[in-house]
Amino acid sequence: MINKGELFLIPNTIGNDIIDNNIPNNIKFIIEKLDYFIVENQKAARKFIKLVSPNKNQEKLVFFTLNKHTSLFDADTFLKKCLEGESTGLISDAGCPSIADPGSNIVAKAHQLKIKIRPLVGPSSIILSLMASGMNGQNFAFNGYLPIDKAQKIKKIKFFEKKAIKENQSQIFIETPYRNDTLVKDLIKTLSSTTKLCLATDLSLDTEEIVSDSVGNWRNKNLININKRPTIFIIDKG
Amino acid sequence: MINKGELFLIPNTIGNDIIDNNIPNNIKFIIEKLDYFIVENQKAARKFIKLVSPNKNQEKLVFFTLNKHTSLFDADTFLKKCLEGESTGLISDAGCPSIADPGSNIVAKAHQLKIKIRPLVGPSSIILSLMASGMNGQNFAFNGYLPIDKAQKIKKIKFFEKKAIKENQSQIFIETPYRNDTLVKDLIKTLSSTTKLCLATDLSLDTEEIVSDSVGNWRNKNLININKRPTIFIIDKG
Repeated sequence: MINKGELFLIPNTIGNDIIDNNIPNNIKFIIEKLDYFIVENQKAARKFIKLVSPNKNQEKLVFFTLNKHTSLFDADTFLKKCLEGESTGLISDAGCPSIADPGSNIVAKAHQLKIKIRPLVGPSSIILSLMASGMNGQNFAFNGYLPIDKAQKIKKIKFFEKKAIKENQSQIFIETPYRNDTLVKDLIKTLSSTTKLCLATDLSLDTEEIVSDSVGNWRNKNLININKRPTIFIIDKG
Repeated sequence: MINKGELFLIPNTIGNDIIDNNIPNNIKFIIEKLDYFIVENQKAARKFIKLVSPNKNQEKLVFFTLNKHTSLFDADTFLKKCLEGESTGLISDAGCPSIADPGSNIVAKAHQLKIKIRPLVGPSSIILSLMASGMNGQNFAFNGYLPIDKAQKIKKIKFFEKKAIKENQSQIFIETPYRNDTLVKDLIKTLSSTTKLCLATDLSLDTEEIVSDSVGNWRNKNLININKRPTIFIIDKG
């Protein structure tokens, strides 16, 4: 009987290519041993592998490509090499696989197949922003993207504010980056002046900016331009 | 006018003392430059600093000790050196400061004082467990500790299950480790058989065990002993 391979969950950087700032050394050693990778985007994954392990020969590597439509059926194919004894790495385009990113279907299937899952340490913009917000880190929710429709979006913002107060739970969410500036204006207009709002922009980059203040104070700030810059939004009760 | 120091948020290991597995190299360089630290426990912080930077002279280091009762008034004292131009490190006993740990008061005060906050990458047992659970990482909540009172606890478990289904949001929580085995039994008994349950125990350690399955299947498992072993619990809709 063959010993199964393991499924390594490998965090990618979040835009800063200096590996020493983002990724513990063991990820280099693990990547050097792997030939099979499940990735969001082959080009991005190859670039990351090159950054972490510049001397690794990439010619013989095999990539399986996943996205949010990847089914449990695909997962079966992607994990075949694990069943044959070859460990496989799961890498998303940025940050931690399966967190605000595809990958959880693969992991769920690996559990069914009794493949050992090995989560590795790396950057999560959700955790970095919450740490740096000064807001409630004992009780928090990540809610993904806001609705595109304006009325729906405003309704959701009010829902999050109510939840932050009623459940004493800070509320984290994201927006498609080219709509960030619009969202900031909507938030400042919609939320009550005592509610706290944090914007964490360009995390890990030299241009990183993290501003956390009451909405009342936000109304008096000169807003910086965060359009097209990756930003995490957090609100909390005042 | 003096340039203010920065407040570095420095993740600690989560029980595995092999720095290369847990902490990016830049944390070593940052710790080597700092003389002032805000910590949960001086002994634990000194041990961590020694692990990361064995040659750093610890004699001249100054420690401010924080806990969950640390007020915004204390925070003012702790951040005084930052205002005088000396950068300061915030380190909790395990994992990321401010996340399921004290520290957010300090960070909130630093924002008020216009001190630059520098969150650094390191292990978060919440993120590691969620990545490895195969559950919903697009929408999730961390709820902290369950109530001690049995009836209250059961009520809360049912509340989380309802929320996981209704809001399509995976629910993460923790228990005081010596009550872990009791909680597992309560969960298996209380939750519906289709609900999914993940237990992530001893994350980052050689004894790491991550099991994710439907409650129906959990009922047929030989339960491993997780008492007194740090464990993250996650439930999700089936």
